[in-house]
Amino acid sequence: MTDGRSVVERLTLEEKARLVSGASFWTTAEVSHAGVPAALLTDGPHGVRLQRAGVDHLGLADSMPATAFPTAAALGSSWDDGLLREVGEALAVEARALGVDVLLGPGVNMKRSPLCGRNFEYFAEDPLLAGVMGAAWVAGLQSRGVGASVKHFAANNQETDRMRVSAEVDERTLREIYLRAFEHVVREARPATIMCSYNRVNGVYASENPWLLTTVLREEWGFDGYVVSDWGAVHDPVAAVRSGLDLEMPGTGGRSAAAIVEAVRAGELSEEVLDVAVERLVSTHERLREGRADAAPDFDAHHALARRVAAECAVLLKNDGGLLPLDPESGGPIAVLGEFARTPRYQGAGSSLINPTRLDDALTAIRAATSREVAFAPGFRLDGEPDAALLAEAVEAARGAAAVLVFLGEPSEAESEGFDREDLDLPEAQLRLLEAVAAVNPSVAVVLSNGGVVLTGPLTEHAAALLEMWLPGQAGGGAAADLIFGHADPSGRLAETVPHRLSDTPAHVNWPGSEGQVLYGERLYIGYRWYDRTGRDVAFPFGFGLSYTTFAYSDLAVHVPDPARAEARVEVTVTNTGTRQGAEVVQVYVSDPVAGVDRPERELRGFRKVRLAPGESARVTIELDARAFSYWSTRHGRWVAEPGEYGVHVGRSSRDLLLEQRVHLDVEPPQAALTADGTLQEWLAHPRGRKIVEEVLLKAGDGEPSFFTDPASQALIAQIPLATLLSMGASQGGQQPPSMDDLLRMANSDTPAG
Amino acid sequence: MTDGRSVVERLTLEEKARLVSGASFWTTAEVSHAGVPAALLTDGPHGVRLQRAGVDHLGLADSMPATAFPTAAALGSSWDDGLLREVGEALAVEARALGVDVLLGPGVNMKRSPLCGRNFEYFAEDPLLAGVMGAAWVAGLQSRGVGASVKHFAANNQETDRMRVSAEVDERTLREIYLRAFEHVVREARPATIMCSYNRVNGVYASENPWLLTTVLREEWGFDGYVVSDWGAVHDPVAAVRSGLDLEMPGTGGRSAAAIVEAVRAGELSEEVLDVAVERLVSTHERLREGRADAAPDFDAHHALARRVAAECAVLLKNDGGLLPLDPESGGPIAVLGEFARTPRYQGAGSSLINPTRLDDALTAIRAATSREVAFAPGFRLDGEPDAALLAEAVEAARGAAAVLVFLGEPSEAESEGFDREDLDLPEAQLRLLEAVAAVNPSVAVVLSNGGVVLTGPLTEHAAALLEMWLPGQAGGGAAADLIFGHADPSGRLAETVPHRLSDTPAHVNWPGSEGQVLYGERLYIGYRWYDRTGRDVAFPFGFGLSYTTFAYSDLAVHVPDPARAEARVEVTVTNTGTRQGAEVVQVYVSDPVAGVDRPERELRGFRKVRLAPGESARVTIELDARAFSYWSTRHGRWVAEPGEYGVHVGRSSRDLLLEQRVHLDVEPPQAALTADGTLQEWLAHPRGRKIVEEVLLKAGDGEPSFFTDPASQALIAQIPLATLLSMGASQGGQQPPSMDDLLRMANSDTPAG
Repeated sequence: MTDGRSVVERLTLEEKARLVSGASFWTTAEVSHAGVPAALLTDGPHGVRLQRAGVDHLGLADSMPATAFPTAAALGSSWDDGLLREVGEALAVEARALGVDVLLGPGVNMKRSPLCGRNFEYFAEDPLLAGVMGAAWVAGLQSRGVGASVKHFAANNQETDRMRVSAEVDERTLREIYLRAFEHVVREARPATIMCSYNRVNGVYASENPWLLTTVLREEWGFDGYVVSDWGAVHDPVAAVRSGLDLEMPGTGGRSAAAIVEAVRAGELSEEVLDVAVERLVSTHERLREGRADAAPDFDAHHALARRVAAECAVLLKNDGGLLPLDPESGGPIAVLGEFARTPRYQGAGSSLINPTRLDDALTAIRAATSREVAFAPGFRLDGEPDAALLAEAVEAARGAAAVLVFLGEPSEAESEGFDREDLDLPEAQLRLLEAVAAVNPSVAVVLSNGGVVLTGPLTEHAAALLEMWLPGQAGGGAAADLIFGHADPSGRLAETVPHRLSDTPAHVNWPGSEGQVLYGERLYIGYRWYDRTGRDVAFPFGFGLSYTTFAYSDLAVHVPDPARAEARVEVTVTNTGTRQGAEVVQVYVSDPVAGVDRPERELRGFRKVRLAPGESARVTIELDARAFSYWSTRHGRWVAEPGEYGVHVGRSSRDLLLEQRVHLDVEPPQAALTADGTLQEWLAHPRGRKIVEEVLLKAGDGEPSFFTDPASQALIAQIPLATLLSMGASQGGQQPPSMDDLLRMANSDTPAG
Repeated sequence: MTDGRSVVERLTLEEKARLVSGASFWTTAEVSHAGVPAALLTDGPHGVRLQRAGVDHLGLADSMPATAFPTAAALGSSWDDGLLREVGEALAVEARALGVDVLLGPGVNMKRSPLCGRNFEYFAEDPLLAGVMGAAWVAGLQSRGVGASVKHFAANNQETDRMRVSAEVDERTLREIYLRAFEHVVREARPATIMCSYNRVNGVYASENPWLLTTVLREEWGFDGYVVSDWGAVHDPVAAVRSGLDLEMPGTGGRSAAAIVEAVRAGELSEEVLDVAVERLVSTHERLREGRADAAPDFDAHHALARRVAAECAVLLKNDGGLLPLDPESGGPIAVLGEFARTPRYQGAGSSLINPTRLDDALTAIRAATSREVAFAPGFRLDGEPDAALLAEAVEAARGAAAVLVFLGEPSEAESEGFDREDLDLPEAQLRLLEAVAAVNPSVAVVLSNGGVVLTGPLTEHAAALLEMWLPGQAGGGAAADLIFGHADPSGRLAETVPHRLSDTPAHVNWPGSEGQVLYGERLYIGYRWYDRTGRDVAFPFGFGLSYTTFAYSDLAVHVPDPARAEARVEVTVTNTGTRQGAEVVQVYVSDPVAGVDRPERELRGFRKVRLAPGESARVTIELDARAFSYWSTRHGRWVAEPGEYGVHVGRSSRDLLLEQRVHLDVEPPQAALTADGTLQEWLAHPRGRKIVEEVLLKAGDGEPSFFTDPASQALIAQIPLATLLSMGASQGGQQPPSMDDLLRMANSDTPAG
């Protein structure tokens, strides 16, 4: 940070104030005499959205061409950090070619409800998966000197009233679920920036929340980049800087700078705090510049990468009778139905909207990939209006086809930044198409394009195969053809549970809140944690996905090198038992059957994707660190791994756990302090407390029955705080018990009790 | 309060301090020279538990004989306020005969989870039902000069860690659910005392919670009695008095009084605050003494009352083929099985444990009621240990019987103050008995005794009839015989939903909390509100109960006298369409399909129990006041009934609503203030706000496209706070928008905008 500090010394108060607020909509201020250039930040994260000059900045349509990679909903389903790193690197090349310093992404918020309109920009319902995916993306991007901006920090899990709503979340839930992916990315990938969210967290705007921006992010996690506001998230620029925000975006035409100058002059804001913010900003941009390796983008290569990635992200949910893949050479005519085969649904709306360099449609790609006859009928209108003629035409096309591919998906207006969905249903006209087609042809495969999960019941009822492509980016059409004809294996696994019904979902009774508040009442039980805890059946569980080949698991071994430390190494052999090359995602879940707090039934604690040729085996090793066994203890203010037995479960989804091994940890138990409101039971469980109770209290009555010795009421009494017992004892008359102060003195003195 | 005040003037500081803390375990201090006698408070609420002198006070076994009436779980199921009043009056007579001034009850806490070990002491999962039951009980008791102590105030809905746990509950949920029954009792029945609970509410002990004890209870509801602590609930006697607690119980041997004197002398506690507490205490006891009409208890009459009440509370859940009632005169031998037929399960454990004046067992009562042959076999051991010989004997008794009555229930150790249940299952040995008996005889009726609901799946699978008696008090055995032979009609209706599984219950993922906190994450969605919201099937819905006769509903009419006021009168005709006399509980639920906040699907807003002879009809009238249409608005800090359409549903359970009428209210809508964080949409929805936006903002750009007029981004912009829009507008350069301060000045000035 030396450089940043020396720069700060050359700046006036006004210049510093000007730096911590944007110069324009997308740029930071420059101060030439001090050698501080302007920096350009622009939207991501699935491509570079650099607006053309002179365009109104909320007009989202017109931006420079860039590769539209698969959205985060797809990328998260890859479970493949190497792949995410590749995407990050490609994005960086494109960003640098446009002069971009910071690309605004990735989004690592949790998919708390499937209704969140921005779920297509988020990776997963599980923080470990989202954290690993996010860290890989950041590492890739930053390896070429473009800064990431991990967003939206924090607890921004809905679009409804997102500018104001207070996410009411208890600390444990924040730590274990909503902050966890951010923490992982900060610790593993050193992101250049974090973007604070619009919303409040427990009543305090994220942009002026010192606990989030300073205590947790910097002091605990060691974040050394800068915090930028989401565009327009700052309400009080002085409070924001004071809380740890380093850059307000967009600029406010000098208003914020003036307020900051005034606050410093009035003694309401320490100039040192402002200096630190400027230092972070300058140093971070300097670090990025130093790491640059600019090159001209190869858009063809990036398109090919986007195509490969899209296939890696696709999740095969059903494939009865091995309907997929189709033989490209023989087998009779293919009917391709659904407007989305011709007009791809490939990205979401809002700030992530990319102007793609090219756009594959599945129909063209399918025709290019096969010598079989391919008929097409759109089947439904994109505006959702019923159209009997289109339906009849599609049914006619399906009749007599050897295989039917139906391209369905969420309409584009259903999924966008700024809005949440109202339900999880595909449009009625699409479901009617599927039903009608299935009635005349049993060989129906549905290819889905959607950012958030949809209810699959009506699909699996009628279709023999179901391939979930998510919003797969500009090469999704090509990827679909690759998958359909078996040139690629569907290698994605669900990063989000597919429920049977909306009313089964974790946040249902609290979504989306009202009157400015939304309670995270389900606490840590989101995603599979909820469905497992409440014993709900689901359509498809977290982690699930089929392959064109099959895998077997064997020889699980969990090694605990030192039971006094909460660490373990998991080894398992995975064998491709089918006849095709394929990828499997080995998933490790840990359970803690007996714990001092309520814990989820099982939690994802590690995973690895392996690619295996037919007959090939691999020994997969996954390391579990202390965090894999820990919960956040609010009482102790830290992560706690308790001594005792844990289950280590290995399998191919959260509900298909094939192997289990129990391990025993002999770690040091957390020791609660002896306090006045500690119960008799708690005092007795503490070595020193027991001594005091036995020697001081139980002897106080000289052997006569007392509160502390009456067996008839022992069970009740055990749960009563000691101070209460003493004061009730005093009400009995007779010899008075010692005071709580005396007992606490004994408990906290170094001399033995008694 | 004149008398109390004049007494206070004659007291020294020390005397006043002594009065606000008990003199002993069960009595308040007396001050002879000022004419303040001691008062005796003792446990209830289902009977008078006055401990014999000289007994350790937590020893719960040995108390003076008193009538053990049905527990609150039973009483709540009566849905009969007249009956509760009778019980209250009888309790008062017994209390007065023992010199009791205040009887500690009723308990009107909500049944948040069926696991709460003290649910047998609470009325219902619905606050209106609990409030009406509680108010009637209080009115009856106090009509004879015995004070009630409505408990446990507030949010005491579990026994686990009950002395310390902080119930984390949002204000709306408190207002609509957990405080509502207390409010009803305070407003309708003017209880002498309120008992504060042990637990914390949102972090603050109930005993030192000024918002609960002063703001809500006294200033808003107008409570004019005194607040007594639950025994041992005070942690800081000075903070307690300062917060609105008037009497700490039990006494603390003078320690609290000394602390209070010291605090007053040190200026840490205002003596006026202490004076008010003493005044309330003295005035309340004086008021009670003035209302006295003491009489010798007629224990025979009270036993008969307890028997009649128990039958009124019994809920017939299943009665296939009209198995019940049995003909007392003919029909062949009857097998009575189950230890509980001989050893009644009739009350719960803990502070409500009564030493009954008499105790009916069902076996004796059945034999007395019928000329049919009655065989008995205990079938299972009370300790839950399997016993093959007992089982075989019972099966033998069942074989060849014309009817089999199986008495099952929760073992006594399962339900007690101080502990929560672990599951909702009946003991395995009892279920095995039922299964084995049902295998040899199809005519099986189960008679259940339990305080909290149990899972009925294994019962309804094997039994043709199921009669839920709850914990029916000392005359429950006689009542069972009355019901079995049709001398009484099972007139109870479920005050608590019977779920299919524990994991279906509302608080499941948050129960019972950990590390000192329990989040009420399901908010207002407890009981039927939860099952309806989440679309869960249930075993038996709230409000359900069969009768030996049948009822028809017709001619619903809902009158809204003045649409500008939120009031309605519901009239419906109920006809006994069967052949026996019987009672029906007419239930009115209101729905608000379109609301500014999330609301339960339907809420109980009125009910009436009617008794009808065969063929008889009654026109039932139920008045709905504003509260029936209102929710608690946190934003507005008051109850809000919105204009619009409401559904009024009438029927015999929460899920058997036979008639519906829509009503339209034209009440004044709540008007939000125009604020900086109001969205553009909200400003436009406000008459003055729209004028300002249109005249000042939209014209600011001289017709050029701006943030406020760009149609491409209108939808996104509508959700953005005006202050944010202004500051983003400033970042665009060009003509600067007006400041938020200017706009707020216009909004709040009296002169027209523009």
